[in-house]
Amino acid sequence: MKLLEDRIKAEGRALSESVLKVDVFLNHQVDPELMQEVGKDFCEHFKDFGITRVLTIESSGIAPSVYAAQALNVPLVILKKQTSKILSGEVYQTNITSFTKGTSYELTLSKDYIHADDRVLIIDDFLANGEAAMGASRLVDMAGATVAGIGILIEKSFQNGRNRLIERGYHVYSQARIARLDKGVIEFLNAD
Amino acid sequence: MKLLEDRIKAEGRALSESVLKVDVFLNHQVDPELMQEVGKDFCEHFKDFGITRVLTIESSGIAPSVYAAQALNVPLVILKKQTSKILSGEVYQTNITSFTKGTSYELTLSKDYIHADDRVLIIDDFLANGEAAMGASRLVDMAGATVAGIGILIEKSFQNGRNRLIERGYHVYSQARIARLDKGVIEFLNAD
Repeated sequence: MKLLEDRIKAEGRALSESVLKVDVFLNHQVDPELMQEVGKDFCEHFKDFGITRVLTIESSGIAPSVYAAQALNVPLVILKKQTSKILSGEVYQTNITSFTKGTSYELTLSKDYIHADDRVLIIDDFLANGEAAMGASRLVDMAGATVAGIGILIEKSFQNGRNRLIERGYHVYSQARIARLDKGVIEFLNAD
Repeated sequence: MKLLEDRIKAEGRALSESVLKVDVFLNHQVDPELMQEVGKDFCEHFKDFGITRVLTIESSGIAPSVYAAQALNVPLVILKKQTSKILSGEVYQTNITSFTKGTSYELTLSKDYIHADDRVLIIDDFLANGEAAMGASRLVDMAGATVAGIGILIEKSFQNGRNRLIERGYHVYSQARIARLDKGVIEFLNAD
């Protein structure tokens, strides 16, 4: 998606071979107009996938996802990061370990907000090792529902997340694919 | 705001004298169309306040706030909940204690995304004791900027948050004001 790539080029800050900061329009300050365009682009890509529900992980995925869900005319469900297991039968939970941040949490989804006949679009801001997206897809599996697609704003294509998801049979659409990062350097993959 | 009150009446679940669950359209599952209407309503109320920036606290405030920011044509900034103090000069931080949840966190705002000439609209999903809104306003104060208004989706008017904010001189606009809760009972204050 050219609009997003252009914003990353103009305002993203590559701090190292693995860290890209986009706090200025996505992760801390948020540009609503860009988020709406991003949401519309996801809708354009996934409009024939029979999506019934968008799932995202709190909190950086929420702004783009709410516009995507609106464009697709389906509800958004925000997966919660709980610090501990909830011992009740009312939720699905799965453990996520973030290698980037060195943290671990229980990704949580109420059984009220997913059904076996759902076709789910999972949206996240970044795809690196794919831990978060794999975890979200496990929750969809637990509900007996279908992961119809995975939408990513920024893919670190030099990490293995995309391959892991493709190996699981998922359709992955990334709006911006980063081939290489280094201090002050951001190189994109050609559009696929 | 009648639309929001109607949804609370229809789909909110009052669990006790203090707990109102609106997971079905706001806090877990999110209705994008409702969020857009909520955002437009905030814009309508605050359009002549000279707002330059919307601030919200992750994560339930993000969806309504991004639509409010879009309608006001200003950026949204998401205040982060950090578990520990960041020892750098790049951020403003203030401690928030949630009496409801029995937790404490450092509300964090990068100095890059607020300026002394900003007129800030703080938006949050719930107002109870006002701890979160007071904390957000402290961050605005630290930056030398101005709290031009505070917008709340659901005010528990039987708690003291509104009074605390008014005593500080803030303009508070709550879209739905709850006079009383009890198991299965939700009573609204008349519109003010």
